[in-house]
Amino acid sequence: MKRLEKVKGTRDLLPEEMAKRRWVFERIQEVFERYDFHEILTPTFEYTELFRLRSGEEVVKQLYAFRDKGGREISLRPDMTSSVARLYVNRFQNSPKPVKWYYIANMFRYEEPQSGRFREFWQAGVELIGSDRVEADAEVIALLVESYLATGLEEFTVNIGDRILLDEFARMIGVMDDIGLMRLIDKRDKMSGEEFIKALRDFGLEDGKIEKVLSLVEIKGLPDDVLPKAEELFKSTKAKNEITRLYELVDLLDAYGVSKWIRIDLGIARGFDYYTSVVFEAIAPNSLGIGSIGGGGRYDNLIEVFGGKPTPATGFAIGIERLIPILEWKGLIPEPKLRPDVYVIPIGTSSGVKKAAIEVVTAIRRAGIKADYELLGRKIRKALDYAGRLGVPYVVLIGERDLSGGRVTIRDMESGEQKSVEKDRIVEEVLNLLGL
Amino acid sequence: MKRLEKVKGTRDLLPEEMAKRRWVFERIQEVFERYDFHEILTPTFEYTELFRLRSGEEVVKQLYAFRDKGGREISLRPDMTSSVARLYVNRFQNSPKPVKWYYIANMFRYEEPQSGRFREFWQAGVELIGSDRVEADAEVIALLVESYLATGLEEFTVNIGDRILLDEFARMIGVMDDIGLMRLIDKRDKMSGEEFIKALRDFGLEDGKIEKVLSLVEIKGLPDDVLPKAEELFKSTKAKNEITRLYELVDLLDAYGVSKWIRIDLGIARGFDYYTSVVFEAIAPNSLGIGSIGGGGRYDNLIEVFGGKPTPATGFAIGIERLIPILEWKGLIPEPKLRPDVYVIPIGTSSGVKKAAIEVVTAIRRAGIKADYELLGRKIRKALDYAGRLGVPYVVLIGERDLSGGRVTIRDMESGEQKSVEKDRIVEEVLNLLGL
Repeated sequence: MKRLEKVKGTRDLLPEEMAKRRWVFERIQEVFERYDFHEILTPTFEYTELFRLRSGEEVVKQLYAFRDKGGREISLRPDMTSSVARLYVNRFQNSPKPVKWYYIANMFRYEEPQSGRFREFWQAGVELIGSDRVEADAEVIALLVESYLATGLEEFTVNIGDRILLDEFARMIGVMDDIGLMRLIDKRDKMSGEEFIKALRDFGLEDGKIEKVLSLVEIKGLPDDVLPKAEELFKSTKAKNEITRLYELVDLLDAYGVSKWIRIDLGIARGFDYYTSVVFEAIAPNSLGIGSIGGGGRYDNLIEVFGGKPTPATGFAIGIERLIPILEWKGLIPEPKLRPDVYVIPIGTSSGVKKAAIEVVTAIRRAGIKADYELLGRKIRKALDYAGRLGVPYVVLIGERDLSGGRVTIRDMESGEQKSVEKDRIVEEVLNLLGL
Repeated sequence: MKRLEKVKGTRDLLPEEMAKRRWVFERIQEVFERYDFHEILTPTFEYTELFRLRSGEEVVKQLYAFRDKGGREISLRPDMTSSVARLYVNRFQNSPKPVKWYYIANMFRYEEPQSGRFREFWQAGVELIGSDRVEADAEVIALLVESYLATGLEEFTVNIGDRILLDEFARMIGVMDDIGLMRLIDKRDKMSGEEFIKALRDFGLEDGKIEKVLSLVEIKGLPDDVLPKAEELFKSTKAKNEITRLYELVDLLDAYGVSKWIRIDLGIARGFDYYTSVVFEAIAPNSLGIGSIGGGGRYDNLIEVFGGKPTPATGFAIGIERLIPILEWKGLIPEPKLRPDVYVIPIGTSSGVKKAAIEVVTAIRRAGIKADYELLGRKIRKALDYAGRLGVPYVVLIGERDLSGGRVTIRDMESGEQKSVEKDRIVEEVLNLLGL
């Protein structure tokens, strides 16, 4: 019966996955907060027009778009940046600058499900609105690096490209369809060298220009090694100024202490059309077939497109469904502890032992310890089996006879040793045994 | 321009609201975990059929229902219980019992927006699957009480009703449309006494039966006071057994130490049709016009309706948009601290002071302190104004001359006092000033 399955392309997140997710979210959130970003949350759906205005019909095809019962065209958000820009235009244009916001939220895209791609997925991201300065770009890129470091990840790079340089490049070699060229360049990692050359030829480029494209995508590596190559390739003042800006950016990132993770890669364009200069994406080498684990860039026009005063902005998003498998593969996420520390079993069915069991489990829980008790009324043997299967370290047995003397029995499930304890001192005993 | 507004009935959650929400979520989650419930998360949308199967066409009218691009009928979840039951049927039927799950997630209902009602809203809830015993009902009701207590709320009651008794009551007075009668009884708090009597008469009841309904809804108060009245009103064995079960429930809740918050109210039916015996809702007296702040009950048939083996279950959900305004009104949520503790201002535009400012803010952040620096390149006077407006307690000034001697200046924003400090000792100094 199809109707009783989850919808294609979606997932149920089970307790172990949720606990790992919480761990990752908490680590990232802590860094976002230290950098003085503040959490916001926008509605799960917006008027479809918002996303159409930003990215055109192309993106609308991938939206979960529908009409609500009031006839409004609405869509589940495909990312957060549009909503954040809309919120800024609605209510924050006159606030002190910069506005520094972060979010941890789910997004939706209707695309063919494939490995590591889901129709509902989570992102943790920031937006820094109101500063056109290279300091703002450095702040978000440094924060991106620190976010990964906070999860224990160390083998990754943040690769920086630049849309102004790509535009200038297209102009320089006389290509009118600069967006088309960028898309092609963006896909080069999925092709062999020959395939890429063939694709460029099919795109209409002659050999001299193809060679220029090949020199462009070779500008990739440590900033000190490759920025001088960019200076050679580009001649226009606009390009020269932008390269100076990249030098400054790299210099500030050095002050943040994150140079080790920074690379230049002028072949990066990023899918979204709304980026205006610096763009970047984070890559962690892996054998899981996972590409970018996050990225972002500067978008100085979007707020104006949405009807706001021209306002510069920059930001990034971390793809949680990309990051977590890599962290797991590297063993960086601690195994979550799902079992309770104590399991309480009443022996028999009298109201007295039942109530005593509840009193004991309640006292233990109030001491901050994760504890549970037998909610199915199983007999002792089955209840102990269940506790054993869960891996509970200590079981408290509540029997009629013990209880009449004000006592209960605590059992060490590993050694099988049992010990009689005054009922009123059970919390103390448990804290001791757990080393708390 | 309507398109640039948020969709009607939805909200943007700003930093202060989000910080308060996090505080509430964390407190509730901590209790859920101590009670050994485990977090899960299901997809935001399900096949519409799932909700139709559970509750009929009536509920489907309030769904955000649409067709995805693959032509599937899907709906945004109106609550979590259906998805949880679906997940249980899909993957957990053969797991050890009980299954104890919790969730903190957003839900969607298409209804007219009114005070405290939003089309997207959050719930924190639990489901306990696999136990038909009164222990399970007691466990979730005690947990509901403890969840509110964890937020500091003390003035509230959890009012317990019973669907079996309501069904028996309808049978007893010879009403065929028992659901209709229940809906009427559920709404009585929104009417005057006369209006209620008129509504009962319009429903087709004669005076003798109306009197019986009035005695039923009077069974409302402390368990010891009102359960004997229920024993008088009901005669059938089925009803008598259920009353015995309520006595047991109340007895177990006493062992949990939560009696103080427990009331019986046999007039409670709860909107959803899938409840099968004990139902309950939590009320906190307030002058904000807010009714129930949470509720739940036992639903022993739902899993079978979804194609699973017959499996008993019970649970509750806390309405976050109902709870938070009451907590705020009572002043129970601490004012969130959104400002940074330290703000670093480079004086001048030289690369040296800029980099030094970044080094200082980075060192302070690495010590776990929330810190920011001047990202707009404002001159010192404007930057100090900005820091003052934020309420930042300490500002670090980085000037060319100080820096050449390896020093920076720290300013106490309240007193206006300034002090020269070695740049390398700034973290130590800040920790001292903040009393850390």
